Amino acid sequence: MFFKVKTSEEVLKILEGFGSVDEESIFVGEALDRVLNKEVTAEEDLPEFPRSSMDGYAVQARDTFGASESLPAFLEVTGEVVMGQRPQGAVEPGKAFRISTGGMIPEGADAVVMIEYCHNLDDRMIEVSRAASPLENIIRSGDDLKKGSVIFGKGDLLRPQDIGLLAGLGIQNIQVYKRPRVAIISTGDEIVPINQRPESGQVRDINTYTLSAFCRQAGAIPVSLGVCKDNFSDLRESVEKGLDVSDTLWISGGSSVGARDLTVKVIESFDGSEVLVHGISISPGKPAIIARIDGKAVFGLPGHTASAMVVAEIFLSSFLARLSGEKNLSEDRHVYVEAELARNIESASGRDDYIRVKLVKKDEGLFAEPIFGKAGLISTLVEAHGFLKIDRNTEGLYQGQKVRVMLFKNPRGASY
Amino acid sequence: MFFKVKTSEEVLKILEGFGSVDEESIFVGEALDRVLNKEVTAEEDLPEFPRSSMDGYAVQARDTFGASESLPAFLEVTGEVVMGQRPQGAVEPGKAFRISTGGMIPEGADAVVMIEYCHNLDDRMIEVSRAASPLENIIRSGDDLKKGSVIFGKGDLLRPQDIGLLAGLGIQNIQVYKRPRVAIISTGDEIVPINQRPESGQVRDINTYTLSAFCRQAGAIPVSLGVCKDNFSDLRESVEKGLDVSDTLWISGGSSVGARDLTVKVIESFDGSEVLVHGISISPGKPAIIARIDGKAVFGLPGHTASAMVVAEIFLSSFLARLSGEKNLSEDRHVYVEAELARNIESASGRDDYIRVKLVKKDEGLFAEPIFGKAGLISTLVEAHGFLKIDRNTEGLYQGQKVRVMLFKNPRGASY
Repeated sequence: MFFKVKTSEEVLKILEGFGSVDEESIFVGEALDRVLNKEVTAEEDLPEFPRSSMDGYAVQARDTFGASESLPAFLEVTGEVVMGQRPQGAVEPGKAFRISTGGMIPEGADAVVMIEYCHNLDDRMIEVSRAASPLENIIRSGDDLKKGSVIFGKGDLLRPQDIGLLAGLGIQNIQVYKRPRVAIISTGDEIVPINQRPESGQVRDINTYTLSAFCRQAGAIPVSLGVCKDNFSDLRESVEKGLDVSDTLWISGGSSVGARDLTVKVIESFDGSEVLVHGISISPGKPAIIARIDGKAVFGLPGHTASAMVVAEIFLSSFLARLSGEKNLSEDRHVYVEAELARNIESASGRDDYIRVKLVKKDEGLFAEPIFGKAGLISTLVEAHGFLKIDRNTEGLYQGQKVRVMLFKNPRGASY
Repeated sequence: MFFKVKTSEEVLKILEGFGSVDEESIFVGEALDRVLNKEVTAEEDLPEFPRSSMDGYAVQARDTFGASESLPAFLEVTGEVVMGQRPQGAVEPGKAFRISTGGMIPEGADAVVMIEYCHNLDDRMIEVSRAASPLENIIRSGDDLKKGSVIFGKGDLLRPQDIGLLAGLGIQNIQVYKRPRVAIISTGDEIVPINQRPESGQVRDINTYTLSAFCRQAGAIPVSLGVCKDNFSDLRESVEKGLDVSDTLWISGGSSVGARDLTVKVIESFDGSEVLVHGISISPGKPAIIARIDGKAVFGLPGHTASAMVVAEIFLSSFLARLSGEKNLSEDRHVYVEAELARNIESASGRDDYIRVKLVKKDEGLFAEPIFGKAGLISTLVEAHGFLKIDRNTEGLYQGQKVRVMLFKNPRGASY
């Protein structure tokens, strides 16, 4: 069967065909970085009563009109607002109540004079040296949020302050999308688990660990199915098991033609399966496979970690965001930094090249040093701070050119 | 007692006086975003044997010298490299072994010819249409990493690929700094837990949730001590308990003068305690307190969430990184984006102003809209994508001016 190699844009379009995971109800205190599954509306005003935003005296503003240092207003202090309690009595003309920040504004008062502008004359009387306008230093009920207003929309990702607001409204449980579960299978007859001493010709399983951490970084839950041998029945069994426990399945390995064919054969052995992509016009990462089994996306990722990471950064990060129910998916989720290219890079046209680059800060500015090394060398990825994309219509980039470097999620990570 | 208000720079300098937390040994698969406590050295070559980086034929390069499409080299296939096994026999002159990506290079061979340039004539013979140079398509042992080389340094933060490399070297357990534990106390007679219906004059506890999520975002472990009343004995007991179970203690609340004084009194009641900062020349956030009790940093944060978040973003994020053992602490840990200011902002000189801003994308570019609202309104923080700093030596910024917006960690969060 013949598959035309697809462009990045075509692949991203195909991935739009997949939906998001189910929802669940969780405690608001556990909701950091979770995505809301439905709109949230304020069921009460916030605050529910008028509050002072300053330490001072609650007054009737008109009693202070025209007050100045040379001509202060004199007020009698007839009460004090106790924090957390409804004030006793009301502020009458010519009177004032002592109040602290956050205290409830007593009846009668319509402004708070800051303590800095009040001077105690004796036990009862204060001198106010500045006029207060009505509502000055007052947060009215509903000023923060009005009852009935929509606070968050479906697909909103929750940040610390968002969680704070929900808590403030007494919303203890919220409906969010589940964290997507990603089954990860590392294939290859040469791969051994990391707790096993490799024999000649064998190497340890790098991809399970790299991809699992990548999932965690994206808020997903990796489910490792371990190392699988390159044969039909083992791989099929592993895929079946993986699909059972996950929302998407990632098979890494199979950089060699035979192994890729095996992955396709296994996928095609599932009823109603469909291979959507077999080869992407990117480098590294070209041999990637994308299929659908039972509505779930199955990815065949290159065995070389650097290639797998390019596919992960370019396609899987936005795919996981989609599974997680996030909105604004059209936006690139990466942070970029501008740097000066430290040397020329050639690039074959007809494919997007992703060059690993190391950023170096010098007196003259930030420089992007391309790391030229085989995709089979994971050290090149460890040395890198991000990728530089050379578009398929560009034949190369020149030393000294300004380039935009796509940063890894934690660019401050180690570089050796 | 009189305290001079300190500048941000002075405060950051003072925080440098605190050390990092203890170390622990963890499984490499759990090490994402953790910070290494000691240098890691490769104890073996990676890979330990020469490998093919392509599918093709392992050959003696000189047998292919001069080969071209019109004048191919003819080689006899005398073996096949089985993945994960040491090859049987050696490649002799005029011979070739079939090999897949990642396969072990057999004795005698010094190059791999890509399958694309080989054509099967019959069961035994292939035609090679392109010369291979020595070492072509071969990853030699130690090419990825040489035994004895330093891979990571103390203070390096681990990313997915870093974990992959450690796994590849068979390093199953690593020494990392513990995740710092942050005790959080929310104070105020007006504050009630979120599962309690507030009476008149009472509000729900917002700061415990905002600050806990902020800690989690920074990789720390929040330990909530709940809501504490504004009295000496309750607060002292809570502080004592908090210090017992944490590496740093954050007391939020006390925007009012009396409550701040109480916090200072409680701190001073501990033997050998020292109030280091009482007031910072920033707005909002000025009333912040920093002290040392028993070697641990104790922070008194403003009760207004927006003020507390400014202090958290400016001082606590780098402080938590320091506790976590990260190196490169001098670098600002925020991501900035350039935008055009949508309207004038005045600013009092003598303090750094942090203005909440909302970013708005228009055809003409990205605009930063200042959000003017009291620090007591958490909705202003929810609406914001980040802060804009107006330096204490600047009196304001003009509409149309290019500004750098300090983004919250997840700028794609909700905005309503």
